[in-house]
Amino acid sequence: MLSKAEIKRLNRYKQSKFRNQDELFVVEGEKMLEELLQSNYEIHSIYATKQWIEKNKEIISQKKITNLLFEASQEDLEKITLLSTPNQVYSLVKMPKQHSEKTPKGLTIALDGIKDPGNLGTIIRLADWYAIENIICSKDCVDVFNPKTVQSTMGSIFRTKTTYVDLKSYFESLPKSTPIYGSIVEGGESIYEKSFQKDSILVIGSESHGISQEIRKYINQNITIPRFRTDNKPESLNASIATAIIISEILKTK
Amino acid sequence: MLSKAEIKRLNRYKQSKFRNQDELFVVEGEKMLEELLQSNYEIHSIYATKQWIEKNKEIISQKKITNLLFEASQEDLEKITLLSTPNQVYSLVKMPKQHSEKTPKGLTIALDGIKDPGNLGTIIRLADWYAIENIICSKDCVDVFNPKTVQSTMGSIFRTKTTYVDLKSYFESLPKSTPIYGSIVEGGESIYEKSFQKDSILVIGSESHGISQEIRKYINQNITIPRFRTDNKPESLNASIATAIIISEILKTK
Repeated sequence: MLSKAEIKRLNRYKQSKFRNQDELFVVEGEKMLEELLQSNYEIHSIYATKQWIEKNKEIISQKKITNLLFEASQEDLEKITLLSTPNQVYSLVKMPKQHSEKTPKGLTIALDGIKDPGNLGTIIRLADWYAIENIICSKDCVDVFNPKTVQSTMGSIFRTKTTYVDLKSYFESLPKSTPIYGSIVEGGESIYEKSFQKDSILVIGSESHGISQEIRKYINQNITIPRFRTDNKPESLNASIATAIIISEILKTK
Repeated sequence: MLSKAEIKRLNRYKQSKFRNQDELFVVEGEKMLEELLQSNYEIHSIYATKQWIEKNKEIISQKKITNLLFEASQEDLEKITLLSTPNQVYSLVKMPKQHSEKTPKGLTIALDGIKDPGNLGTIIRLADWYAIENIICSKDCVDVFNPKTVQSTMGSIFRTKTTYVDLKSYFESLPKSTPIYGSIVEGGESIYEKSFQKDSILVIGSESHGISQEIRKYINQNITIPRFRTDNKPESLNASIATAIIISEILKTK
């Protein structure tokens, strides 16, 4: 049984301020814990039901984390969870060190102002599927440790590197020959006609404003997913959907 | 100013039971209203702030809907809205007649048990982008008139047809020669190696279980998006992301 003070303390991690201060983020649910326990991420603490502990005792002893484990009732967990569906386990995980961004090897995704946690999480999961390791975020992107982002990565957060940078300085630092593809709704070269280089950067703009004015000048190749309707409708595609279609075109076996 | 009874009545439409009973669904927000007013959907009533009415008086008189328009305060709208961001306008719209499904012309998307309203809405928006008119849903898919679905279509709901059918009977009724592509996580033919026919059906399974057992036998061509990682991670892609990648492969200019 968790004390009131403990519940209050854990609930603070819903806010990025406290996550950043303590360098901890929340990972919840059986599926996510399974992925976490297979990763090298350092666990700070786990709050779980008796049943979850029983079911996972082998991996718990193997990972030597018994001392980080606290039994909690279903009611306790309901008081701290951020999920809508019933949940057996909640854990606090240490944030990894910010990775230093490097000259791209393979395809790098650069996100300019993505605001929706679900979109960021979905893009991370997609990147993981295509074995893309590096996701670069502008400082005004949503927090990768936002619980909704973490959840929608479905575990891919543990296998990819998301780095927050000043995008301008990042682009300035790249070799001038680096292909920087910018996804724009209209007027770019059709992704179905273009030959892509795989060592490159793909820039995806924000849900409501696209690629920001100050970043556009670093794009050396504008690309567009052709719209099949002829009446200029719909206005745009969802950001993660557009990212998926373009990544598939860039990376597929030719 | 809306009465308490009025607010209570409008709030009932958050539940599908009352939506279906009155054959009405909710459309909210300036962007969505703009799309609604450009469509042929029949409006039942609009509740809007003075500012919205002022701004849209031209189209209101043009569409002859003055009699359906009720002024509401910002506070009133906050009591009935389903959105998290401030909102100027809320409307009730008549559900269109269920379209009778036909032998496919072009690509038809068939959804088998999609449960997430955001996924369904995103797929509808994607379909609209690729000028796909017909989306067939199994009866256990999430309601297309769920307010979250409506919202995430970003207006594409007004330009596409979503029909709920018994999928088994639907597939039984099709000409035997119809290509029915089933998206499976592993073991299907690579989408990057396959030649697709554009007059065909693409079946997408549910987020957690994929294509259901009873539907699998109707699939005549299993297809898979190759996973680029070699460790069987991640387990799957988000359903709307997978739909996007496959549709792009099927429909792109070759």
